[in-house]
Amino acid sequence: MIAWTNFDKLNAYKTLQGLKSQVELKSVMAGENGAKRVAQYCVPMSSGLAYNYAAKQVDDTVLDALAALAEEAQLADKYAALYNGEVINTGEKRLVLHQLTRGQLGDAVTADGVNKRDFYVKQQERIAEFAKKVHAGEIVNEKGEKFTSVVQIGIGGSDLGPRAMYLALENWAKVNGTFKMEAHFISNVDPDDAAAVLAGVDVAHSIFILVSKSGTTLETLTNESFVKDALKKAGLDASKHMIAVTSETSPLAKSADYLDAFFMDDYIGGRYSSTSSVGGAVLSLAFGPDVFARFLAGAAAEDKNAKNTDIRKNPAMLDALIGVYERNILGYGTTAVLPYSQALSRFPAHLQQLDMESNGKSVNRFGEKVDYVTGPVIFGEPGTNGQHSFYQLLHQGTDIIPLQFVGFRKSQMATDVVIEDSTSQQKLCANVVAQIMAFACGKDDENANKYFAGNRPSSIIVGDQLTPEALGALLAHFENKVMFQGFIWNLNSFDQEGVQLGKKLAKKVLAGDTDGALAAYAKLLNI
Amino acid sequence: MIAWTNFDKLNAYKTLQGLKSQVELKSVMAGENGAKRVAQYCVPMSSGLAYNYAAKQVDDTVLDALAALAEEAQLADKYAALYNGEVINTGEKRLVLHQLTRGQLGDAVTADGVNKRDFYVKQQERIAEFAKKVHAGEIVNEKGEKFTSVVQIGIGGSDLGPRAMYLALENWAKVNGTFKMEAHFISNVDPDDAAAVLAGVDVAHSIFILVSKSGTTLETLTNESFVKDALKKAGLDASKHMIAVTSETSPLAKSADYLDAFFMDDYIGGRYSSTSSVGGAVLSLAFGPDVFARFLAGAAAEDKNAKNTDIRKNPAMLDALIGVYERNILGYGTTAVLPYSQALSRFPAHLQQLDMESNGKSVNRFGEKVDYVTGPVIFGEPGTNGQHSFYQLLHQGTDIIPLQFVGFRKSQMATDVVIEDSTSQQKLCANVVAQIMAFACGKDDENANKYFAGNRPSSIIVGDQLTPEALGALLAHFENKVMFQGFIWNLNSFDQEGVQLGKKLAKKVLAGDTDGALAAYAKLLNI
Repeated sequence: MIAWTNFDKLNAYKTLQGLKSQVELKSVMAGENGAKRVAQYCVPMSSGLAYNYAAKQVDDTVLDALAALAEEAQLADKYAALYNGEVINTGEKRLVLHQLTRGQLGDAVTADGVNKRDFYVKQQERIAEFAKKVHAGEIVNEKGEKFTSVVQIGIGGSDLGPRAMYLALENWAKVNGTFKMEAHFISNVDPDDAAAVLAGVDVAHSIFILVSKSGTTLETLTNESFVKDALKKAGLDASKHMIAVTSETSPLAKSADYLDAFFMDDYIGGRYSSTSSVGGAVLSLAFGPDVFARFLAGAAAEDKNAKNTDIRKNPAMLDALIGVYERNILGYGTTAVLPYSQALSRFPAHLQQLDMESNGKSVNRFGEKVDYVTGPVIFGEPGTNGQHSFYQLLHQGTDIIPLQFVGFRKSQMATDVVIEDSTSQQKLCANVVAQIMAFACGKDDENANKYFAGNRPSSIIVGDQLTPEALGALLAHFENKVMFQGFIWNLNSFDQEGVQLGKKLAKKVLAGDTDGALAAYAKLLNI
Repeated sequence: MIAWTNFDKLNAYKTLQGLKSQVELKSVMAGENGAKRVAQYCVPMSSGLAYNYAAKQVDDTVLDALAALAEEAQLADKYAALYNGEVINTGEKRLVLHQLTRGQLGDAVTADGVNKRDFYVKQQERIAEFAKKVHAGEIVNEKGEKFTSVVQIGIGGSDLGPRAMYLALENWAKVNGTFKMEAHFISNVDPDDAAAVLAGVDVAHSIFILVSKSGTTLETLTNESFVKDALKKAGLDASKHMIAVTSETSPLAKSADYLDAFFMDDYIGGRYSSTSSVGGAVLSLAFGPDVFARFLAGAAAEDKNAKNTDIRKNPAMLDALIGVYERNILGYGTTAVLPYSQALSRFPAHLQQLDMESNGKSVNRFGEKVDYVTGPVIFGEPGTNGQHSFYQLLHQGTDIIPLQFVGFRKSQMATDVVIEDSTSQQKLCANVVAQIMAFACGKDDENANKYFAGNRPSSIIVGDQLTPEALGALLAHFENKVMFQGFIWNLNSFDQEGVQLGKKLAKKVLAGDTDGALAAYAKLLNI
């Protein structure tokens, strides 16, 4: 029997409260003990990755308490309930099935009268077939010419995830001979977004993907019209340039306005949709279906790792537990995501949505206010860039910000130079290593301005190279981490009621139905 | 006499402590009183901008206390000391003169034996002349062909600010007929960054700007070599494709490796250098010197506004004071910057550096530990994109995050569509207005999942259009805000000792001079 219990009602919560000042990083990370931690506090992941948490403020006592928390909060059982098709998104009364897009973790799941794994696989196959025809010049523009670029029109989860994944693999695909088409993205309702993207692409040779689950997202429909306008002005037939990714019940599903439509469903939230048709269409067109399949395989392998009931062998669960310890016991309010990989430049923005939209909530899954803090603020930029920017605050500011590093031994493009006896890649790796230790151990100095307090915790996900598999694993790791944290905080991580009020008020403003301050602001903006 | 006193030693600090629960936004922003606040709590800025703080948790009592703080902390006098050339960067014993790049606010400032205003103006004139020659085809590549793009090589302040400014004006320049050359940026030591940028530009027709004040920044020198390598492989003479922006005393200043060198000096910190040669070279080449001059004029006008001793007429000072009230009295740890303008997509990343590197410090300007929190974490993305991402947490999360909106009545490109009786620009503006009110007033609901607590403070900088002047004003506003907050917290906002330790350890790793955990991590990354 699964019990959905608030975090502060668990025995483990009290145990953990007693472990507030358990670990001083500065001392445990010093000398040979530090080296031992780096070797031992390391969990293998799939696709050549490993989650290393040596520089987190934990020891075996804390880990044992976290293991007890995992058991008491029934994290493994709740995950099983999710992938076996229970209604985990209770607010919207929906199953939560994004893992099924990349593998079968448990029982067959039937919903809407169909086997959902079969449904997702069928969409992947349809997309693969479509993409191959585009690449082969069998699906062409009105003049019979090949499409050379793809433009995704979508916002939120239909934008951030697919865009981050595209950027992550763009250069890898280019040097590995699998690059098929440039991808571009239109998301913002700001008309300058669409106008600028359209000015920069060869519209006559572009295929547009309209992505909206409901088929009613105002920004996306507005941008679709914007694009259709541009196509018309260029003397082109929009219906020969557009496909839709939507749910089968949406108005877009069977429209003559599109070359074809590929489906997702209500069981996949926007922010969890990179491995569904939402990511599948654009990534398969850009890099070929084989690369997308490899990306899915990496995610599937990591989903499987997340089933392990031993937290020391379950990187996502462990990462989640340590994050909760930092947030609720140690009192840290923000987490920085710092990939030492330029290809992951927009990965932090995706995680920002994934995490903050899932767990930025004040009520539990029964709609009762909780008495503890939940999801932290997530932000980040790639290293080494961040080192020359906001790291000053991370090192010497008055708040402690836990850090999530990501690093790879090899670059993607393998073009490099040796300066002062090292390659750029070696410099990049040396920097991330140096940062971990600088944050953990600090530095004494008589001059307080040059003093580093240390005791600033970090973990690193290390990989060999950012391949499609590694990217899939990385994505699934964070999706699962966020899910486990939602379980611990007893939240529904799969709805987003917080976005509704703004939408409603915006409609009132556009309808001129305002008074008081809302009217005054509308006047200020000349609406 | 200026007294540099810690914030918590001021009388105003105690007064403010007593004003913790002074304003409930939900009630003061309701009804006609809300409309009155929107009209009254609004400070005109230069260049058609206004700073509206109606939805901040202040009233006349709090504002009076903040005015008393401004006076007691001698904010106006300290600003005057700065622009009159006192050694405000005490740690590094340097003047702080970035405002002089765009105007003369007070006395003539002489340093290094020259009038510094004359020095900065001379560099602007030299850059303008150079840019005009490039645009006119008088300075050309080896084959006598015109340069068509410019690539900036720099990191931190030599990258984030200029890049954000370039993106902010790129489309404006394109529709206003002043666009001259595409600009690209190489920053990260990750070799994939330089490799990808070089693969995407026409190297034979590119002019590269090497930006390093000291001429010793490892990332930048490494990327310079990377670029030189690529130029050599393409059979090109690097010295005919490169200019330097550096200090007169740097090894780059008089090198035959460059077509020309333009100068900055030690009195302009990297994060404050967008209006110096660091931003000037790339922006003048991209958009023409006249656009850069307009950008400087906007900044200069806002610097002048920052001199006003009446906080209700000084937007930067008022913004700074309210920020301190939120950080130290109300206890909010993070601030989100949310421009409703796709052109400002990287503006939050620039502010992140500007703010966090300036004020993310634990010691005062005398090197003594302070007993209060200082600079907050800054993050943000453009709206409406953010609404479909992390706004969930902003609306319903357990922490309150103050918000800084930016919005413009008109788009830059003036291409738009009408859908459901409104343009995209109207939708964009309606959304920002709606968000302000949703955050301030919330919404009651019997279903706690749909309940919005409100009382989440925001301000908005409203403008007519994002022009070069408006951008300059916006930039100067935040530079001055950060400066005033540094004065209140009694910090030196102009050094960055926190970046040194990581650099030092990275060198040790590259030299193989490691043991303990540092050696273990180096091994993990295969260095």
